[in-house]
Amino acid sequence: MRDWTRQKTERATRMDAAAPFADGKVVAADNATDMLRRVIKSGDRVCLEGDNQKQADFLASCLAQVDPADIHDLHIVQSGLVLPEHLDLFRLGIAKKLDFSYSGPQSGAIARALDQGKIELGAIHTYIELFARYYVDLTPNVALIAGVCADRDGNLYTGPNTEDTPTIVEATAYKSGVVIAQVNKIVDKVPRVDIPGDQIDFVVEAPRPFYVEPLFTRDPGAVTDSQILMAMIALKGIYAEYRPKRLNHGIGFATAAIELLLPTYGEKLGLRGEVATHWALNPHPTLIPAIESGWVEQIHCFGSEVGMDRYMSARPDVYFTGKDGTLRSNRLMCQNAGLYACDMFIGSTLQIDLAGNSSTVTPDRIAGFGGAPNMGSDAHGRRHVSDAWLKAGREAAGGAGPLVRGRKLVVQMVETFGEGMKPAFVEELDSLALARKLNMELAPVMIFGDDVTHIVTEEGIANLLLCRNADDVEQAIRGVAGYTPVGMARDRAKVEALRQRGVIRRPEDLGVDPMEANRNLLAARSIRDLVTWSDGLYSPPSKFRNW
Amino acid sequence: MRDWTRQKTERATRMDAAAPFADGKVVAADNATDMLRRVIKSGDRVCLEGDNQKQADFLASCLAQVDPADIHDLHIVQSGLVLPEHLDLFRLGIAKKLDFSYSGPQSGAIARALDQGKIELGAIHTYIELFARYYVDLTPNVALIAGVCADRDGNLYTGPNTEDTPTIVEATAYKSGVVIAQVNKIVDKVPRVDIPGDQIDFVVEAPRPFYVEPLFTRDPGAVTDSQILMAMIALKGIYAEYRPKRLNHGIGFATAAIELLLPTYGEKLGLRGEVATHWALNPHPTLIPAIESGWVEQIHCFGSEVGMDRYMSARPDVYFTGKDGTLRSNRLMCQNAGLYACDMFIGSTLQIDLAGNSSTVTPDRIAGFGGAPNMGSDAHGRRHVSDAWLKAGREAAGGAGPLVRGRKLVVQMVETFGEGMKPAFVEELDSLALARKLNMELAPVMIFGDDVTHIVTEEGIANLLLCRNADDVEQAIRGVAGYTPVGMARDRAKVEALRQRGVIRRPEDLGVDPMEANRNLLAARSIRDLVTWSDGLYSPPSKFRNW
Repeated sequence: MRDWTRQKTERATRMDAAAPFADGKVVAADNATDMLRRVIKSGDRVCLEGDNQKQADFLASCLAQVDPADIHDLHIVQSGLVLPEHLDLFRLGIAKKLDFSYSGPQSGAIARALDQGKIELGAIHTYIELFARYYVDLTPNVALIAGVCADRDGNLYTGPNTEDTPTIVEATAYKSGVVIAQVNKIVDKVPRVDIPGDQIDFVVEAPRPFYVEPLFTRDPGAVTDSQILMAMIALKGIYAEYRPKRLNHGIGFATAAIELLLPTYGEKLGLRGEVATHWALNPHPTLIPAIESGWVEQIHCFGSEVGMDRYMSARPDVYFTGKDGTLRSNRLMCQNAGLYACDMFIGSTLQIDLAGNSSTVTPDRIAGFGGAPNMGSDAHGRRHVSDAWLKAGREAAGGAGPLVRGRKLVVQMVETFGEGMKPAFVEELDSLALARKLNMELAPVMIFGDDVTHIVTEEGIANLLLCRNADDVEQAIRGVAGYTPVGMARDRAKVEALRQRGVIRRPEDLGVDPMEANRNLLAARSIRDLVTWSDGLYSPPSKFRNW
Repeated sequence: MRDWTRQKTERATRMDAAAPFADGKVVAADNATDMLRRVIKSGDRVCLEGDNQKQADFLASCLAQVDPADIHDLHIVQSGLVLPEHLDLFRLGIAKKLDFSYSGPQSGAIARALDQGKIELGAIHTYIELFARYYVDLTPNVALIAGVCADRDGNLYTGPNTEDTPTIVEATAYKSGVVIAQVNKIVDKVPRVDIPGDQIDFVVEAPRPFYVEPLFTRDPGAVTDSQILMAMIALKGIYAEYRPKRLNHGIGFATAAIELLLPTYGEKLGLRGEVATHWALNPHPTLIPAIESGWVEQIHCFGSEVGMDRYMSARPDVYFTGKDGTLRSNRLMCQNAGLYACDMFIGSTLQIDLAGNSSTVTPDRIAGFGGAPNMGSDAHGRRHVSDAWLKAGREAAGGAGPLVRGRKLVVQMVETFGEGMKPAFVEELDSLALARKLNMELAPVMIFGDDVTHIVTEEGIANLLLCRNADDVEQAIRGVAGYTPVGMARDRAKVEALRQRGVIRRPEDLGVDPMEANRNLLAARSIRDLVTWSDGLYSPPSKFRNW
């Protein structure tokens, strides 16, 4: 007779063992490590909430204090591995296997740990893919999450950074797992209930607020003329051509420049209300001038951004907010929106090869994928049409027809030479060397060339939709790769032929004057300008204040 | 000075107007129509929860009672349009525009209403695509949802049929919309909180329990020898070859036959533990014998199934359940699991053309897509590998390599002649005629040929991964199309060459003996057998009981 309730029994045993360290659901910070010792078993799958921004950092430090003799071989399944404590778990032998999405500041440390065999790598996922596996074969046994406050029944207010929390909690709580939340404060009544107490087993008031990183703040003061030129090229050659209304922007300076040009150059092109009205987007401060100028109908956010909370609370017609007035973000919902409801993804990358494959991996750094592979892929399951989507699909197919699907616009913006004058265009991605070194069966490619529709550099646009074979693609890419070795090795006749076909478009072909491309075009030229645009509602993090 | 809080003000006005018809959050059934009159305005986007199974049928009938002079031009945004009341809204002039996913029993009525101009069609979506748009450009102003019970604070227990509810509520509640729930019972304390009361504005105790349809119950007694043969072919030629561990099955009899063969023929092939261990699946009663025989590790469900609740509650190691013991389903999570975490989708269709495009549309019926376009599409954003996925991708690419992505196995099972001896293989899908008639820019195709990897008929398997051009695909399809006109028009020499290349595999090539393909192979031959396998825990709906 098979026992079909092993997980429920196991859960009850753990909860009983932890009970002495709790007062109902409330666990004192001093007892947190002891409680974790009772709740977590060697070999468990543990999600130690590390989102793109918000970190369950106190619980991470508690977990790092357990004795590896007691708890070892944990399988960490979490989207972000960004704190030193996260790496400590592997260094100390508490954790062994890792499935994740994004590493950011720990990308160097992860590369070293993998190389030294300290981490057994499951896989690097795009966010929504990892979330999917929470419900199939990577269901957490224990989830350690973070919120702003909770009541004594465990009702949780996540605050504006809801991010991954509901997705993690649902997978864990409904599969007989244990959910533990660190909160900044235990209160009598939460401002709103983002997660019902039914799904939370323990709450710990952490000695300090959870860590959250401002990741999406780009100082307009640091936008270069070259980025402004690329933004003008994109606005004239892509926004004005395809008119994508629903879209996502990546987090680089090139897309920040587009945001800052909407109320100026975009207005001149007559695009207000015609493009970029509905967004799946992090709360980019650089979008404030466009919002205030009436460009934006609605924005759904993956997470929040430090300093933007008061502004978003004052703009509930644009942002998703709760009855308490603060932002509601949700990474799963927003990633799904990016995949299925957006006509365009436009973002930056580090390296592009001759087939249009792109990567942010360097030999020493594995930054992970985050959301890019999802946002930047064409959803074959999409069945609703839009003009932008159909136009892209028809360019790719060479014509219209009832069986001709549309295509998502996937635009990569890249300056031909990146940081330290490293060429962005390469014969082989660094990612391939890494794959060989770590014996990976699939190289960590951010976006594969077959999903990329346009590459924008300061030299112009390569429209890969109009390419008809691999040679077209290669010469189209060489044709916008500037003075990089890849660009220099172009076949000039072929590139000129591609230009005649409209595959390559130069600034002059678009009527974009590079002389105009300067900071006078920006709707805001400093963080302070953004504060002014926001009517004082935007409160930039101190590191961005120089006044 | 622009008003940025128009939606919050509008919401407050509506809530105030509705307040006289409520006692706190509780609205008496007799007051429901009056309350809706105050809450809903002409032109609103309304989600009248119609899921694949669960229906907010009482609220639908209340809404159908409002005066079209007061409320008209509603834009209905809901996944299922399956009740006569849903159509009434359009017939009466209360609703005008429609964005939906699935129509099931109303597929004929929808086709007629579209033809007569009674419905302005937004689009037919796959589920997760419509959910995505809830967060971008189809956010509901009002959501009318259904749950099992609620307390007076609005805390909602959805019961096993959670389905779309959390996704609808989140989009509406956090964008200043109004959420109204019909429940079977208002109680002092709900068994578990699936949706916090904070997100629910009004609850109505309906005069009868919400309607729910058993959609996934297939009587083993109705499985034919031909379906058993196809199931054997699939098990030997696909399951045993690719070893997909994570998968989804469609709802047809052919996949039900596979489920019923796992403990018999599958066991003989030595596949237990090697395939089909983790599922994104509705609670198919026909999977009970495989579960009881130890084949299945874990199942996440889109929704529930009438009669399966007690069985699932007793098998929490397999199914996702709450602390109260009942199933937790979630369509968005499960669709995401099917898209990103599954190695295989296998299901049936009605028509397949010479490029492998498939459709369930007939000239008179628009059944919608449901989840198939999503489950049956290759996620280009996937970055984790599995053996099954890599093998499929390498077959398509003609080799391995660090830049060779895998492919999801997308298998279409179809008998060469369907109901009424209608050929399943056609030169042109009926869907195209419909697109012409309704001036649709994209024909309603369920799964496009470029995502299909295998077609299984009683004549054998066509492996489209190994096809190298459109002619290969056409002849591979003709080569398994039997005695249909499409099959008869095959080029015999080319088909034989494809067989030599392993593109086409006949039962004899696989060592499958059609003489063995009979009902003796089924692990359960009747609904009653399923009850026995379940140890009496499965309680089939009365229409499936003949004892």
